[in-house]
Amino acid sequence: MSNSLIRQAIEMAVANVRRDGGPFAALVVKDGVVIATGTNQVTRGNDPTAHAEIVAIREACRVLGDFQLTGCDVYASCEPCPMCLGAIYWARPSRVFFAATNQEAAAAGFDDSFIYQQIAVPHAQRTIPMIHLADELRTQPFEEWGGKLDRRRY
Amino acid sequence: MSNSLIRQAIEMAVANVRRDGGPFAALVVKDGVVIATGTNQVTRGNDPTAHAEIVAIREACRVLGDFQLTGCDVYASCEPCPMCLGAIYWARPSRVFFAATNQEAAAAGFDDSFIYQQIAVPHAQRTIPMIHLADELRTQPFEEWGGKLDRRRY
Repeated sequence: MSNSLIRQAIEMAVANVRRDGGPFAALVVKDGVVIATGTNQVTRGNDPTAHAEIVAIREACRVLGDFQLTGCDVYASCEPCPMCLGAIYWARPSRVFFAATNQEAAAAGFDDSFIYQQIAVPHAQRTIPMIHLADELRTQPFEEWGGKLDRRRY
Repeated sequence: MSNSLIRQAIEMAVANVRRDGGPFAALVVKDGVVIATGTNQVTRGNDPTAHAEIVAIREACRVLGDFQLTGCDVYASCEPCPMCLGAIYWARPSRVFFAATNQEAAAAGFDDSFIYQQIAVPHAQRTIPMIHLADELRTQPFEEWGGKLDRRRY
């Protein structure tokens, strides 16, 4: 099954490798128009968060002047990793289309599947241990937030 | 249980709400020194990815000139959402300390727990449907990457 937009994302990903970037690209489309693109910029920008989807989502939000991608579709050359899936849920586009699977990414040496597996592991047993410090003031930021009448929900 | 660094993150989160930001903050610490801080900038920056941990990780990587946070600890005012957890796995710090839990964030109206639940739902049944387009060229970016002798793994 093909589609000209997913094919465009794949071709951008191939071109990004040739420019010394990672093998991933993504597009954000609204009303049939590509409003933002992103390629993996992790090594080029010394930014581990600069996955294609994150770059494209940030750019699309900049273009729209909004922190929500209401009515938009995301086309990704590969199934989103947990970081990018989370970003997608926060940005709330309508749909996500992807080409390569996480298994195919794993076969190429990318950790996505591993991170998905880690989410199911108890905090302290993860390869990066997560340690709960139950400071007695820990919910104070939420109380401050709840008491703020002009807060802007997101 | 308290700790001066986690307390610092909590106090930054409270202060961020008073400056019209979201109720979250994070620090990155290396060799006992805070090398970067981040507060939630989603609404201020029209950037749904600008969670405290993402902002702090990006800044720490900029400071270190590296896309890895080897030997660093992350202190977060709240348990990381799936996006931030993914970013942590890609940045590979040594440990993560957090104060409020995802349940406490959910009680304050934040979707973290919901996104964790969505990860376990089959693609097409998620509230944001994820649709696989098995383009025949979908693994071409990985093949290009695999054939690149000077590729920089990340």
